[in-house]
Amino acid sequence: MRKGAVTNLRRIVERTHAADLAAIYGDMNDLEQGRFFQVLKQSDLVGEVIAHMDPVNQQELVEVLSPEEVAHIIVEMDSDDAADILNLLTEEIRDDVLTAMKREDSEDIEKLLDYPEDSAGGLMTTSFFALPEGMTAKEAVEAIQGDEDAETAFYLYVVDEAGHLAGVVSLRKLITSSPATKLRSIMSTDVINVDVNTDQEQVARLVSKYDLLAIPVVDEEKKLSGIITVDDVLDVLREEATEDIYKMAGTSQEELLHGNRVMPIFRIRIPWLAVNLIGGVLTGTILWWFRATIEEIIALLSFVPVITGMGGNVGTQTSSILVRAFATGRVDFDSLPSHLWKEVRVGFLLGIVCGAMVGLAALIWHNDPYLGVVVAVSMMAAMTVAAIMGTLTPALFRKLKIDPAVASGPFVTTANDITGIFIYLAAATLMLKFIKH
Amino acid sequence: MRKGAVTNLRRIVERTHAADLAAIYGDMNDLEQGRFFQVLKQSDLVGEVIAHMDPVNQQELVEVLSPEEVAHIIVEMDSDDAADILNLLTEEIRDDVLTAMKREDSEDIEKLLDYPEDSAGGLMTTSFFALPEGMTAKEAVEAIQGDEDAETAFYLYVVDEAGHLAGVVSLRKLITSSPATKLRSIMSTDVINVDVNTDQEQVARLVSKYDLLAIPVVDEEKKLSGIITVDDVLDVLREEATEDIYKMAGTSQEELLHGNRVMPIFRIRIPWLAVNLIGGVLTGTILWWFRATIEEIIALLSFVPVITGMGGNVGTQTSSILVRAFATGRVDFDSLPSHLWKEVRVGFLLGIVCGAMVGLAALIWHNDPYLGVVVAVSMMAAMTVAAIMGTLTPALFRKLKIDPAVASGPFVTTANDITGIFIYLAAATLMLKFIKH
Repeated sequence: MRKGAVTNLRRIVERTHAADLAAIYGDMNDLEQGRFFQVLKQSDLVGEVIAHMDPVNQQELVEVLSPEEVAHIIVEMDSDDAADILNLLTEEIRDDVLTAMKREDSEDIEKLLDYPEDSAGGLMTTSFFALPEGMTAKEAVEAIQGDEDAETAFYLYVVDEAGHLAGVVSLRKLITSSPATKLRSIMSTDVINVDVNTDQEQVARLVSKYDLLAIPVVDEEKKLSGIITVDDVLDVLREEATEDIYKMAGTSQEELLHGNRVMPIFRIRIPWLAVNLIGGVLTGTILWWFRATIEEIIALLSFVPVITGMGGNVGTQTSSILVRAFATGRVDFDSLPSHLWKEVRVGFLLGIVCGAMVGLAALIWHNDPYLGVVVAVSMMAAMTVAAIMGTLTPALFRKLKIDPAVASGPFVTTANDITGIFIYLAAATLMLKFIKH
Repeated sequence: MRKGAVTNLRRIVERTHAADLAAIYGDMNDLEQGRFFQVLKQSDLVGEVIAHMDPVNQQELVEVLSPEEVAHIIVEMDSDDAADILNLLTEEIRDDVLTAMKREDSEDIEKLLDYPEDSAGGLMTTSFFALPEGMTAKEAVEAIQGDEDAETAFYLYVVDEAGHLAGVVSLRKLITSSPATKLRSIMSTDVINVDVNTDQEQVARLVSKYDLLAIPVVDEEKKLSGIITVDDVLDVLREEATEDIYKMAGTSQEELLHGNRVMPIFRIRIPWLAVNLIGGVLTGTILWWFRATIEEIIALLSFVPVITGMGGNVGTQTSSILVRAFATGRVDFDSLPSHLWKEVRVGFLLGIVCGAMVGLAALIWHNDPYLGVVVAVSMMAAMTVAAIMGTLTPALFRKLKIDPAVASGPFVTTANDITGIFIYLAAATLMLKFIKH
């Protein structure tokens, strides 16, 4: 690049928001990304830009940098973002990076790396603002004026001598109090907080329920160890919803780490499909068992897809709704029976109406009242069973501490294919015997 | 209730967070809710508690209150929450409520009601804090101290004489500036803002991208009309994800307004199922067309479910992933071709592996190499086609301004059933002719 071009680029970098720079970077090809990063790494913003990048861009980038370069960049980042970057590296390179950092810088980050990524500990930043309860309002204002780094200054957490979380003062309350007042007497002691081990979904639920801008995180001894800000909670909500949607579709959000690379995505999806493949062959086996019935009344064939399809649809509806209700906390095990009872009634009603429609279609198409009855009755039964299974399967998975989202989608669909086909052909076979006698 | 019980209840209400009171209310039966509300309505918190309730509780509650009572309660609420409550009422009752309010109170809310619920205008509150650019830092601090009502005081928006958004000053910046400084000289003029007509999904994306705590909303003349705070954005993110999951499952989030009432939920779900019912009958028609082939090789039957099932699974995976990628902005029309190309390759690879597995199963099970080849080849073709349709259908829907989530789930599954069955039986029929000659 010409000298002038670099200078221009530098000027653009300085004037642009880190989030926009990260988005621009994501749209570039490899060559452009390389050149752009040469300019970017001389800017103070480099850490913030990387923190805003897509995980796939982050990973590609840190893989080509030396441990020293990574150390140099992440030391400027908030500790939670730095830990996220380190989590993308192999253990070996991660250790090299930590070794390349100054001891006091690496300590905080190493502590964060010990917590599971989806816990409050893994989500929190250790760069926060805490003041002793004996401080006056005036001293507190001065402390804020002197500290550039604290990620949030809208809530001021107050700690006792031992570092335990004692209360919270809003910045607003602080400036509306007389200068000599002690924080102890203006702080609110009723602080909603979480433990380092709290699951991130629970953190998101609390922040969203109480409309918080940040939530303090305490360790086992109730000492204030970090805070989680609402922007990280937004990311959690988005990620949890994405993860649920991916799992319901029978895959995993891990796909996102692989961009457009085909082989790793294939490897993520194939186990799910293999399970459903076995389910599909099982359903086929049931058809094969009943082949004598089908050969006798070949018209039965024409309603196999609608019986399995509708069972699958009701199953997907019921299970997706419950998975989402579990995720948002709208339904729990206490309210599960009334939820199940509602779904059963809805499924039964849908089954009666759809059964009547398809039964009528069968009667008109094949001019066979027996077929009409078999189709109608088994459709109704299959849809009611699908509603029950679509509710109980995610609930069972949750009880077993497996993510209920896995139970939705392909899994429930395949299970309902099997029960639907069985009900249909068993009913037809019985009916056939009944006609013969 | 005894007098003492009411007093106790009143004490509990005073000490409990509005969000918790709303949750407690939701868990009560009708009788308890009635008694609880008698106490609640004498508390200052009543508006805030109602704002935190489930929509289904809100609706039940406002339906039994008189227009005067509703007016009395919502006048204490933030204007955006008040508008949400009014949106639950019939037009007639809503007008009665607005008439029962004082003119200056109803004006703001009426303006909000004019905006679509899913626009920035429908989401914003008109209770915000704006200061003239000529004010000094000292005057600004005094203004904050005097105003109890402003929903946020962490960003102070600055307006010019005509009310246009001119800049923003953080509370922190304000208290770290010397008292005589004019806001004009300390404000940042580069304020990320949205228009009243901006879609709420876009609002959420901006707030999340730039890690904002609030975003100002301007009208057509660039005048500051309201603000949207991050807690409302959290709700939007949650709602949009819920809506996508409901639509992918073939229903709508409207279900949530009806609690456990069966009939309204039945009415929401039946149209979706009816469409798929027709699709299922169409698939059956294709089976019926090819009945001669099936009667000749009855073993073909045993692979019908696995062919449709696997096509449906790949279709659901591909479409769900794209719908989510559209929603989070990760894929747009520019990056669609490379996304499609990835999905086609993944689908083809999955098809080869699954086709080989099922083909082998067919060979072993029925000891028929021709059947093995037909099953393997059509599985591969059906899965590749499913990957293409699973990508192009949501993209087409988006182009047509229909929510792409509708295209996922049942719709794509049914479409893939039809193509899968057709490919399979057409291949089998061709192969049969080939063997005969």
